[in-house]
Order: sequence, then C-alpha cells, then structure tokens
Amino acid sequence: MSKYWSEITKNIEPYVCGEQPKDKKYIKLNTNENPYPPSPKVIEAIKMAANEDLRLYPDPNCDELRDTIAEYYDLNRDQVFIGNGSDEVLAFSFLAFFNTNEKIIFPDISYSFYPVYAKLYKLDYKLSSLKEDFSINVEDFLGENGGVVIPNPNAPTAKAIDSDDIKKILQHNSDKVVIIDEAYVDFGCESVVKLIKEYPNLLVIQTLSKSRCLAGIRVGFALGQEELIDGLNRIKNSMNSYTIDRVAAKAAVAAIKDEEYFKECVSKIINTRELVSEKLKSFGFEVIPSKANFIFTCHPDIDGEKLFATLRENGLLVRYFNKPRINNYLRITIGSEDEMNVFLEKLHKIVENILQK
Amino acid sequence: MSKYWSEITKNIEPYVCGEQPKDKKYIKLNTNENPYPPSPKVIEAIKMAANEDLRLYPDPNCDELRDTIAEYYDLNRDQVFIGNGSDEVLAFSFLAFFNTNEKIIFPDISYSFYPVYAKLYKLDYKLSSLKEDFSINVEDFLGENGGVVIPNPNAPTAKAIDSDDIKKILQHNSDKVVIIDEAYVDFGCESVVKLIKEYPNLLVIQTLSKSRCLAGIRVGFALGQEELIDGLNRIKNSMNSYTIDRVAAKAAVAAIKDEEYFKECVSKIINTRELVSEKLKSFGFEVIPSKANFIFTCHPDIDGEKLFATLRENGLLVRYFNKPRINNYLRITIGSEDEMNVFLEKLHKIVENILQK
Repeated sequence: MSKYWSEITKNIEPYVCGEQPKDKKYIKLNTNENPYPPSPKVIEAIKMAANEDLRLYPDPNCDELRDTIAEYYDLNRDQVFIGNGSDEVLAFSFLAFFNTNEKIIFPDISYSFYPVYAKLYKLDYKLSSLKEDFSINVEDFLGENGGVVIPNPNAPTAKAIDSDDIKKILQHNSDKVVIIDEAYVDFGCESVVKLIKEYPNLLVIQTLSKSRCLAGIRVGFALGQEELIDGLNRIKNSMNSYTIDRVAAKAAVAAIKDEEYFKECVSKIINTRELVSEKLKSFGFEVIPSKANFIFTCHPDIDGEKLFATLRENGLLVRYFNKPRINNYLRITIGSEDEMNVFLEKLHKIVENILQK
Repeated sequence: MSKYWSEITKNIEPYVCGEQPKDKKYIKLNTNENPYPPSPKVIEAIKMAANEDLRLYPDPNCDELRDTIAEYYDLNRDQVFIGNGSDEVLAFSFLAFFNTNEKIIFPDISYSFYPVYAKLYKLDYKLSSLKEDFSINVEDFLGENGGVVIPNPNAPTAKAIDSDDIKKILQHNSDKVVIIDEAYVDFGCESVVKLIKEYPNLLVIQTLSKSRCLAGIRVGFALGQEELIDGLNRIKNSMNSYTIDRVAAKAAVAAIKDEEYFKECVSKIINTRELVSEKLKSFGFEVIPSKANFIFTCHPDIDGEKLFATLRENGLLVRYFNKPRINNYLRITIGSEDEMNVFLEKLHKIVENILQK
C-alpha cells in the first residue's frame, strides 16, 4: 500500500491471469490458447505490415477491420467496436453501460474478471448461483437489474446456454444492456449475433485469441446496435484513441478472412475435445459437457488442488480455481492431439497412483 | 444520447485526435509523427515475431521490454511500466494516483487529453495559466494540489521547462504524484528521469511514437519508483492483463536498442526544425522556441484558422486548436527535409497571397 495510490487503487482486487511460464518445458493447457499456429495468411499479413508506415499512427477507427467483421456477420461497420483483446472491450463496456447505483448481475461461477471490473468502477453486483449441474438460473436474470453479463459458453464450466433463454433475458431487461461474452462461442456453441437486429440492448463480445489462434496479437470486438457501439467509442476515446496497432489490425483482417483455416482448427479442437472427454470419463472423471476449447472436470475421489499440483510437477499445466463450489475442479485447455495424448497418458498414471495409495 | 449509456458515458467529452487521412495526398504534419521509418532492426524484429508463437498470450509483464528500458535509463525492471501508447499510460495514471475529492492541476494550454481523463474519472482540476510567453507559472504548482501533470516540453507550445522548476514542484508536492509527460523530450529537452531515485512522487511518461518512429505500434511507458509502478499495475490488471502484443513488444525492444538509428533520426529532425523556424520567422511568423518535433507558430497579420484551412486545401495538413489564447496558432510537425521544403515553398506563396489582399 502506498500513500500515492488513489482510493480506487487501494481498494481494487486485480485479476490474476494464468501463468505464462518462460521455461517452455510444460504442456501448457492453462490459458485456453489454441494449439494451432495462426493462419499462414496472418503471418504473411504481419510481415507485409512490417514497413515504413509504422512511423504513422494507425487508423483510430479500424475501418478495414470493422468492415471485415461486419461483412462476416452481416452487420454494418457502425455495429462493430474493436478493442485490445476482449478484456479491454469488457472493461470499456462495464464503464459505458453500467451505473454505480444499480446492481448488475452475473453468474457466481463465471469469468473471474467480471467482479474485478465491477470493483474498479465501484459498481454493485449480485451473483446468480448456477444450478447444481452448472447451468444458469434464468429466473435470476428476469428481475430488476442494472445490467447483465453472461458468458456463453460459460467459463470455466464450458457449458452452453440456450438462445431461447438469452432471448428471455433480453426481453426482461429491455432498458438495460445485456452483455453476452462469446469468447469461446466458435467451439460449437450457438452465437446470438443474429439477435442484434432485434434487440437494441444486446452487446455480443468476441475475441480472436481463441478460435482464431491469435492470443499473442490482442484483438477483441463487440457487436451491437449503433448506440451501444457509440457508447463504447465515447469511453475508448476518453482513454486511448489508438488501441489497435497497424500490425494487429492487418493480422486480424487476415484471420477473419481465412475461413477455411479457421474451420479446420476449430473442427480439430472439437474432435480432440470429444476424445479427451471420453477418456477422462473412462478414468473416473466427471466431465461437464463442453462447448468450449477447454474441459471442466473433477474426479470424485481425488482432491482437485492436489491433482493440479501433481500435474504441474509432471510438466502438465492446467488451471485451478480455489473458489467455493469449483475448488475440486480443473479447467483443461484442449491442446493438439499429440499434446493431449501425452497429457492423458501421464494423467492416467497419476490418477492410478493416487487411487492406489 | 442513448438510454443505455451510463451517466459517465453521457457526460464525458471524448478526445478528438488529429486527422488520419486515407487518401494519402497530404503532406501530413498534423499528428507529430516521425518522418523517418522505424529502424530496419525494428522491421526485422517484427518479421521474426510473425511466427507460430502468436497463438500464445504475450508476457503480461513485458519483462524483456521492461529490462531493455530499465537498462537504457539505469533503473530496474520494477521501475518501468509498459502501456499501449503513452495515452493509455496517462489514462491509467490519472486513475491510479488521483482522487475525486482533490483538485489536480495542469497548465491551461497543454495536452488536450488531460481534461478528458479528468472528466472520465470525475476528477476536479484547476488550470494554471501559462505566462504571456507560454512558459509555465511555477508558483501555481506550489500550493495544495491533488496531483500535478505537466508535459515537458509542453504541447502544443513545444516549450521546455527547466529541471530546477520541476524539482521545486516535486518538493512542494511531496505527498502527491507529479506526472511529467515527456512524450517529446528526446528532441532536445532535458529529461527528469535522473530525478526518479530522489523523488518517490515523480512519474515520468514517455512514448515510442515520436522519437522512435513507432506511432503505428502503440507502446508507451512510465518510469518511477516501485510503489508508483505497482499502482499502475494494479489498475492495468483490473482492466486488461495483456495490453502489449508479442509483435509490439519485440518491435519496441529493437527500437530502444538501436541507439545509433534513434540518434540519427532525432538529430535530423532537430536540424530541420531549426531551419524551418528560421524560414518561418523570415516569412513574418512568430515562432515559440521549440524543443519538440513540432513548431507552434502564428502570423501577426494572418488569421490562424483561415491559414489552416488554406493549407489544407493545398494538401498541407497541420493542426489547429480552436481554443482561447491559441486560436491564432498552428502546430506544425517537423517532416523530412524534402517535405518541409515543399511545405515552406507553398506556405510562402499562400502567405504572400493573403497579405497582398
């Protein structure tokens, strides 16, 4: 604590992101990165962007990228907002749409950055408890709210929410913004982008970090009707006019355009996910049906924290959350098939070993 | 105005950045970009960074870049904070160190983003009037303040502030953070980085957008004692863990390391600036002595706004601020020698033309 810190700085509880180990000896299944490299067209686009124009500021509005995303989703340019990763888009959204005197609502088990944003902006929030099977409690979201935030599929549970449930939530919160965080939507979940035309209160947030293999480039985006996008632009332009650099913008355009590569990567990950899920079950794990690029799982007879630590000792990095209700679970990112084979083999031995004791 | 906007969104006044024309027909002297391309080593570093590791998140702490900057300035890693351009670093700093119940202070004529940040965070501020010659009124900064922000050299005036004056301000505000915004310091102004060891309340902010020819890449940084850097990290990690992508971090490291190229570019710009200043005076302009990569100037017999518009029609883009005291001035970025020769030639004709009427 420093006397120079503002009251806000003293009181916030910053987010702690998954480890980024530098020694490279791990099979890294802890931050939901894509096991496949970005499209060769992305690599080419970056090399092309490495030119003398880097002396100039980028386009603050990212028009080329907005046009590309708008075309992809059958929207118009002014229905797209670009940010430095979907975390920044979320940070701007909380400030753009939520007020200090009204309680926003999100699930008790969801992306752990949401309460961090809320505390940063001194927003009150209430938590809706997930049901026993980790599905969301739709009724909780139909009361009086200052705004709604729901990840779909949810993280870290990987569980999908039905579009009809989201519709119901949108209808019951017509005066408030409903943020659907679709960071992982491309891995088999149904997107609600198609509802944007109908619901002016819907903001959909996506990222290129997961399904587009570009966690290293930092591009996320929000989709919504013009007045929501305007609101985000007002916040962004009160903080930083140029959040997306020239190289990142070009990389992102190339990534969105290479549909074939995208589909191939996503399809491989889904296949691997299903194989891994079956294997885990055969080892005695309970597996939440996943629509994401990770699996949320626990073993009824093995302590989650202990298993996490043992995996780590054996060069297998997964994510563990020491939080109520989920402190026996592990979140395992889907790596390449080879990585997952090694992972499963080692895990199997570890599990056998623990159970024999 | 939208019913979905928060009170903050409704009340802020976003910053309007200098035009980024897309038709490319202008001599672009409006956003203080460097006329020279980035170092060839930067271009090479970007191409090298265009690899399969882009699927992975970047190092959230930017250790390699922090080490490079720390070594350059004889500081340690924990005295360096990296942000997405110095605008983001400023935005985080206002939130990290200033409180709503105390008035911060900055010059009335200075970077027009400061009041935007203040409004975003509902911070009160008082403006210190620059003296007639645009030098800062040191006495104003020695009273009771919630914090101090001063650009050195000042923008848009390009005028330098004496280090002894900054020392006095640091001493009189020992319980409050004093931000010295050194975005343009490399163009002949004395940096106060050397005072960091002595003053725990000093935060120096710099950028790679100007002297390092990298406006297109978005990297800025803050230098200060550990407790200030800690405060900035708390804010950053409550908004966005990964603000600097893998490519930008590598580009920035290469830019800082290529000292020879840096010195050459800066020296060329300073030479051109001095030549342009003399020429402008010979055309009858009043020129504030500049320690930046731009010149702030007015002609006693020509309306600034009109001159700005006429220059624009003639393909010469400079910056004009329609604000009290400076609404007759133009801010002219120093371009390459060739660009400035064309600029001066056209300007001369325009001036002659206006004066003959």
